[in-house]
Amino acid sequence: MTETGENQQSFMRPFRKRHRVAEAWEWIARTARPLETEVVPLLEAFGRVLAMDIVSPVSVPGFVRAMMDGYAVRAEDTLGASPQNPILLELVGESRPGMVPDVSIQSGQAVRIATGAPVPPGADAVLPAEWAEERGNTVIVLGSVSPQKHLAQVGEDIREGEVILRAGRQLRPQDLGLLSSIGIQLVPVVRSPTVRILICGDEILPAGTAGTGFRIPDSNGPMLGALVRRDGGKVLDCQILADDRGAIREALLQPADVILVSGGSSVGHRDLVPEILAEVGEVSIHGLAMRPSSPAGMGRIGSKLVFLLPGNPVSCLCAYDFFAGRAIRLMGGRSPDWPYRRIRATVGRKITSALGRLDYVRVKLVEGQAEPIAVSGAAILSSTTKADGFLLCPEEVEGFAPGTEVEVFLYD
Amino acid sequence: MTETGENQQSFMRPFRKRHRVAEAWEWIARTARPLETEVVPLLEAFGRVLAMDIVSPVSVPGFVRAMMDGYAVRAEDTLGASPQNPILLELVGESRPGMVPDVSIQSGQAVRIATGAPVPPGADAVLPAEWAEERGNTVIVLGSVSPQKHLAQVGEDIREGEVILRAGRQLRPQDLGLLSSIGIQLVPVVRSPTVRILICGDEILPAGTAGTGFRIPDSNGPMLGALVRRDGGKVLDCQILADDRGAIREALLQPADVILVSGGSSVGHRDLVPEILAEVGEVSIHGLAMRPSSPAGMGRIGSKLVFLLPGNPVSCLCAYDFFAGRAIRLMGGRSPDWPYRRIRATVGRKITSALGRLDYVRVKLVEGQAEPIAVSGAAILSSTTKADGFLLCPEEVEGFAPGTEVEVFLYD
Repeated sequence: MTETGENQQSFMRPFRKRHRVAEAWEWIARTARPLETEVVPLLEAFGRVLAMDIVSPVSVPGFVRAMMDGYAVRAEDTLGASPQNPILLELVGESRPGMVPDVSIQSGQAVRIATGAPVPPGADAVLPAEWAEERGNTVIVLGSVSPQKHLAQVGEDIREGEVILRAGRQLRPQDLGLLSSIGIQLVPVVRSPTVRILICGDEILPAGTAGTGFRIPDSNGPMLGALVRRDGGKVLDCQILADDRGAIREALLQPADVILVSGGSSVGHRDLVPEILAEVGEVSIHGLAMRPSSPAGMGRIGSKLVFLLPGNPVSCLCAYDFFAGRAIRLMGGRSPDWPYRRIRATVGRKITSALGRLDYVRVKLVEGQAEPIAVSGAAILSSTTKADGFLLCPEEVEGFAPGTEVEVFLYD
Repeated sequence: MTETGENQQSFMRPFRKRHRVAEAWEWIARTARPLETEVVPLLEAFGRVLAMDIVSPVSVPGFVRAMMDGYAVRAEDTLGASPQNPILLELVGESRPGMVPDVSIQSGQAVRIATGAPVPPGADAVLPAEWAEERGNTVIVLGSVSPQKHLAQVGEDIREGEVILRAGRQLRPQDLGLLSSIGIQLVPVVRSPTVRILICGDEILPAGTAGTGFRIPDSNGPMLGALVRRDGGKVLDCQILADDRGAIREALLQPADVILVSGGSSVGHRDLVPEILAEVGEVSIHGLAMRPSSPAGMGRIGSKLVFLLPGNPVSCLCAYDFFAGRAIRLMGGRSPDWPYRRIRATVGRKITSALGRLDYVRVKLVEGQAEPIAVSGAAILSSTTKADGFLLCPEEVEGFAPGTEVEVFLYD
């Protein structure tokens, strides 16, 4: 439960080594593979990730259709027409959207047609309504159209056999429209990773309750739940566990793609989770050269990934974003990158870090300057709600001087 | 149903004037006001918009607690301690998280304490575990701590009576954590606007079916549904309506905050919706100086807003994003701005527009250059799925020369 791990005695087993963040990212890249395919109804596919290329079984449009309201004609019949030199055509019928045209056109004839309606046989252009007048059975043509004008050709939008969307695409609103236009009802997408959240600590009360005595309501569960949803995962459950070996072991063995454990994950004598994980599975990385979140870790139980997140809420957020979220995004077929907007800013006040350690620095943006939030303890969750975002102080620098240009990741 | 509206005769009632996009935005700003407050459970509040300032009823922490595993001590007792000059203290008990400390400290005494546990009366600092050794009832102090060190003071994170989050905030994952830490169970948020989608056209089949004969599956319904969800609205229903006066009137009279009508919205003789809307309510804006989407419009029936969206899918997407989405975001308490990421790019190929008209140009990004998508008909939905985003050619320019720097809005 401590944030520093060097040289612990009495009731600490010190971290043997601090892993670099890059090592953890490599482990995640090797371990968190996209899940299998599932099909979901079209209307639920927004934001999901396509599991395979979609090849269109049809052409769109599937028939030659009018692109404007007007008259289906033979273009050559309109040659030379103008308000000064009107040409008269015989109106022989009408073509309406969705209906089989009941007429065909001979030379000298026209058919009234609405946008989207099929162009009747014999016609090769649509004369816009504003270039014509209708008198009884006669259409007075006031302008000319060239062949194929104002028609949508078969396959102009989508050709039969064409790949319209590629595997790996996160589906946008217009993609759903496109899938619908080729008659797709069920969409093959990467299955969403299922996630269980375990909150460890004798002192923790359920979220949504008031603290009593020296017990405090869980704040990491609601935060982690929202983060998982943001990253396309599906929260199965959020359980609060006492510091109890049996309960923790049982919870770790429940089915899920990912288990997030908040608290009990460091090297103190109450930090039972790493030892239990090592018994039922494998602790692959534990202890990171970063601040906060140095006691974070990760491992696996069979194909199930387990992330050890510090109980301090800022560390928990940071460790989720650096490791667990990355894995959840990859398993769901998404980019491992943070979903935060990035902007360039200059450092407003000196930031100090340590060589060999990556620092996650919450900042406020004041007139384009990134000001580090003064209260930076890992327990102070309000530092992440007062911040506009964060910047990273990488391993190879000891900090940033005021005026240094940096990249800021925005929480919004 | 036509995209051009000048000088229509026979079966068109021409647009009397084309409104500028800015006029429509002013109408929306006046008309689309944030909805009333509703309360939602904390776990469902992610992404919702706070309806009022949240004032904390408690301090967090609510008691002085340890920030590290170690020993609660009187700081003065450790003065001058070092590995060369260890100081011995009497171990008189333990303080565990969530438990009432059963001891207090006198000079010369220490209490074993875990991170998060209450600091017992009499102690004023926590000595980290790694600076001490424990032998039976004796703590060997190997370093000194100053008063208040490694303690979280009452209210250090949140002070009772403090405004922790402001009205209008779109709730982030860490905000949910913060709300939970002060015992909030129900969160007051701006009610999500309810939206009905009406798809007009005799030729339209339900989404998720194959086209048959000259009838085509609805593509605008699934697209609009996803757009509404993206913007925080709640889709009540998506109905397909024939070009039938009675059915359209009845559908417009159903309860909702917003009605989106796709198709039947222009000035052709099959475009029944504007006339029916004028009968049961008010058409406020119809016909816009833009391309595509020039036949778009908007109005109201009582407090219900109605948006007329062209049936051509690209126009439908564009008109939604320009007008309906803006209103839905405002009604839900959000920023009216597009939720698209913006980047700077240079125009790759000449783009022509017309003075006085705003153009929505789909572009592909090729090595930082924005290339307009060649096939740009408003019926070609695939132009919006092949595009990476769009740029705007405003009213006051006739186009962009290659190399012009522009802002591109990204669809992803």
